Amino acid sequence: MQDSENNLRLADVQNRTDNRQIALQRVGIKNIRYPITVLDRERGSQQTVANVNMYVYLPEHFKGTHMSRFVEILNQYRCEINIRTFQDILNEMKRRLASKEAHLEVDFPYFIRKNAPVTGTSGLMEYGCGLYGTMTDRLDLMLLATVPVTTVCPCSKEISEYGAHNQRGQVRVWVRFCRFVWLEDVIGCVERAASSEVYSVLKRPDEKFVTEAAYDRPMFVEDIVRAVCVRLKKMEEITWFAVEAENFESIHNHSAYAYTTVDMTGENPASTLPVTPSVP
Amino acid sequence: MQDSENNLRLADVQNRTDNRQIALQRVGIKNIRYPITVLDRERGSQQTVANVNMYVYLPEHFKGTHMSRFVEILNQYRCEINIRTFQDILNEMKRRLASKEAHLEVDFPYFIRKNAPVTGTSGLMEYGCGLYGTMTDRLDLMLLATVPVTTVCPCSKEISEYGAHNQRGQVRVWVRFCRFVWLEDVIGCVERAASSEVYSVLKRPDEKFVTEAAYDRPMFVEDIVRAVCVRLKKMEEITWFAVEAENFESIHNHSAYAYTTVDMTGENPASTLPVTPSVP
Amino acid sequence: MQDSENNLRLADVQNRTDNRQIALQRVGIKNIRYPITVLDRERGSQQTVANVNMYVYLPEHFKGTHMSRFVEILNQYRCEINIRTFQDILNEMKRRLASKEAHLEVDFPYFIRKNAPVTGTSGLMEYGCGLYGTMTDRLDLMLLATVPVTTVCPCSKEISEYGAHNQRGQVRVWVRFCRFVWLEDVIGCVERAASSEVYSVLKRPDEKFVTEAAYDRPMFVEDIVRAVCVRLKKMEEITWFAVEAENFESIHNHSAYAYTTVDMTGENPASTLPVTPSVP
Amino acid sequence: MQDSENNLRLADVQNRTDNRQIALQRVGIKNIRYPITVLDRERGSQQTVANVNMYVYLPEHFKGTHMSRFVEILNQYRCEINIRTFQDILNEMKRRLASKEAHLEVDFPYFIRKNAPVTGTSGLMEYGCGLYGTMTDRLDLMLLATVPVTTVCPCSKEISEYGAHNQRGQVRVWVRFCRFVWLEDVIGCVERAASSEVYSVLKRPDEKFVTEAAYDRPMFVEDIVRAVCVRLKKMEEITWFAVEAENFESIHNHSAYAYTTVDMTGENPASTLPVTPSVP
Repeated sequence: MQDSENNLRLADVQNRTDNRQIALQRVGIKNIRYPITVLDRERGSQQTVANVNMYVYLPEHFKGTHMSRFVEILNQYRCEINIRTFQDILNEMKRRLASKEAHLEVDFPYFIRKNAPVTGTSGLMEYGCGLYGTMTDRLDLMLLATVPVTTVCPCSKEISEYGAHNQRGQVRVWVRFCRFVWLEDVIGCVERAASSEVYSVLKRPDEKFVTEAAYDRPMFVEDIVRAVCVRLKKMEEITWFAVEAENFESIHNHSAYAYTTVDMTGENPASTLPVTPSVP
Repeated sequence: MQDSENNLRLADVQNRTDNRQIALQRVGIKNIRYPITVLDRERGSQQTVANVNMYVYLPEHFKGTHMSRFVEILNQYRCEINIRTFQDILNEMKRRLASKEAHLEVDFPYFIRKNAPVTGTSGLMEYGCGLYGTMTDRLDLMLLATVPVTTVCPCSKEISEYGAHNQRGQVRVWVRFCRFVWLEDVIGCVERAASSEVYSVLKRPDEKFVTEAAYDRPMFVEDIVRAVCVRLKKMEEITWFAVEAENFESIHNHSAYAYTTVDMTGENPASTLPVTPSVP
Repeated sequence: MQDSENNLRLADVQNRTDNRQIALQRVGIKNIRYPITVLDRERGSQQTVANVNMYVYLPEHFKGTHMSRFVEILNQYRCEINIRTFQDILNEMKRRLASKEAHLEVDFPYFIRKNAPVTGTSGLMEYGCGLYGTMTDRLDLMLLATVPVTTVCPCSKEISEYGAHNQRGQVRVWVRFCRFVWLEDVIGCVERAASSEVYSVLKRPDEKFVTEAAYDRPMFVEDIVRAVCVRLKKMEEITWFAVEAENFESIHNHSAYAYTTVDMTGENPASTLPVTPSVP
Repeated sequence: MQDSENNLRLADVQNRTDNRQIALQRVGIKNIRYPITVLDRERGSQQTVANVNMYVYLPEHFKGTHMSRFVEILNQYRCEINIRTFQDILNEMKRRLASKEAHLEVDFPYFIRKNAPVTGTSGLMEYGCGLYGTMTDRLDLMLLATVPVTTVCPCSKEISEYGAHNQRGQVRVWVRFCRFVWLEDVIGCVERAASSEVYSVLKRPDEKFVTEAAYDRPMFVEDIVRAVCVRLKKMEEITWFAVEAENFESIHNHSAYAYTTVDMTGENPASTLPVTPSVP
């Protein structure tokens, strides 16, 4: 064993006893950037670059954890990080770090091919996605999709003789689920709920279409959150979700904001993976 | 009344009825930057620049909230934002927005004069601070202090013939309290718990002192979190706290991380202001 | 002398000779955050929080510079940082660091009171500002103002039956000058050149006004840069400027961008303070 | 032709005449995120995610440029973005946008496998890289490599009885060249010039090695810049370079900084791709 042989002569300081009687809920590595491969509905898999956090619970009697083991586990699993393997990775973290709890957080850009609505011109859209898992006795797993959208202000449209202020908005959706769910489906829910989708390439006929379609469907951030809620409630594999909409207001230098959570199970909403919109 | 007069002829779209039966937990403005004045133990008050979020609960039957009122309230209170006035501001938000819940989050850089340990050379240190409050039937108020520190690795020191890797770390402490608490006291707790404090200006005799003092007190992120816990437990005004330590490792390009929470009251730790170290 | 007394016994490593025959164009401290006081046309002065970089030229025969002296100089001048004092600070840097060149870069948020266009409701707007100076034999001084604006797309307006996509944009202007110039005047130039100004607070009559005014004045990023150029050319105190406009497109997840420089003197545009829009 | 057919009926607003007599040096798209494939010395190619800016020169008589064409070009070339294809992409930009100048800036994380110095444990290291090209009559091409390093302070080591403060640093190198150059070689130059390299995974014997090796080779930011200069001067394919070193000081909350440029050709250092360390 490489570990034991090489390290034999060197003190294992982390393994020593601590007598302050304070257990630590999370100990590990944060903000390591790593190339990973995730599932892609169209093409099977997609290579991307992730920001990863890995933590375990540290009992009160141990001085420290062994940080290098986290990176070794990441190395081992990086070519297959998805909903189906998350449980294995978390179990491996519990085993290698000898801990009763493990946490894994993986954020990554995800690209989907998307055609312009009229000309069909093709481009790639980036969505900021994430997978967050906590393994105690059971697995708590959560998916994040960040979706850029266009929003037209209903108030501005109604009170003005012509025009209406609109802007880029950003919707973030966190979901828990009882069966496999595709990122593509969650993203689709959000895009269909906005004043208009956003595209990477639009020719003039597309721009005309998008402008008029958005004007025909004005929405506050409040409306978008509710519209996304209505759609997500219909996805049977989803058991809990949080929706956040933020508008980068074109008439202000700050954002309009709305957020809510919906628990489809009626269970205790407080969980080991708390979601908070802004603290910290 | 300006509001009623000027707006009389214009439709109040936000005030309309929504029939989707979805209440929103948080609706408001996000990331507005504003100059504010906070309490300063040495000088009475300190002018700084804040990033502010303001939200209220929106019942299911209203279409939207009135975003401009949040800025008007911020305008009104900006010269006195502190632990003592937070309740007033939150109550004013509830009143003006006709809501049963209000949330206010204020992040700001805070400066404290600090003298070098040997030469006494004076400089100003920046600490990233925050005040987060939620008002429902009762007030839930939390303070944040972000404190840069020096950490020397105990493992590196012990296994090496000479030297020890060390680095800048960052400790964040969130506290709830039953009596007024000074930012200065919370920050002091953290600085005394690290391998060494950090300074804005150090002359050579100070650098010698700091180097040797830090080498004499090696600490993992785990040690720092525990040392801060021990100190905060002795502050009687504090009822709950969370401590996070992040080391910007000098031998890696990622961070070592530790986090835990301590509830001094034995009450339910789940609260309206959840603290999560990394999600989202 | 504190410096000499205390440091007498400790080696001055920085002062040693280097024999690699490589002079360094810039050596110093970067990203120190400090509270500063700047000039304010309405109120005399304004307290804010700056990000500061301070560099000097290091001749080939010296091993290093003395970093603590930069902070001491910043300490000394922080209550009066403006166009008029910049030369003194740079000269003090040259003197204390015994260098033939000094560079000082100060970025800070600056707030201006602004009333809504119809109701006159008052609020504070933040503008990201900067002062950049290089002192060789002569002073090269530059001012930066970052101004958020609203832009309505002329193409979208013309080709659509109704509506027009619009968004928040950001204009940055760097100016060199031969006489004192107010930040307020540079900012005013930009705000009057956009489809509409941006406000921190707007009541409904204001929102109607802003929506219609913007729709009446559609502008590409190209148009805004040119409109700002036309206005700045009329300010006699300005000798050179660069204008950058970036639109956070509401129909895309990327920005539209335009940039140009204008030299009013006919002199060599290559200067010691190069401005580049994006590298690095 | 899709372009002409679909757009026939819609006005080409961008193509109209502008009479303000102001040419724009750069017009285009900024901050579009796109998956790209770059060259990899070990494995042939590497898939990563880029941040891309694309600009052209806009003559004074045109109102605007055609933004969608930039994305179409990016789409066409994204699977092969490297030093060899940059000229083709820039020429295609000039052709499609009918401009005399084109600028392309591509920033991306690049990963290299790296083994720990004693145990040989394998991990992946991220380096922030960039390719920046300007095509006028001729091509001006530049490569960027960002390399994390460990630095031990020579002053702290010498004046202290034991220990020495050290920290993570970041070195950025921009190079121009007359023949193909591998990112791996530029990165290697920097890593061999620091107090120690940085690794993603280190076991205890590696940590001992790295700690002692770094203590044996203390370096200021000034030393690192000079040491990198000495190494880069020996690479015959390099005609010009800029080196920047920034230390995230463990005893301060700000950075120590050094920067210089070296022109190996004796030609005019002022070029169409100016490099500036901090403005804007």
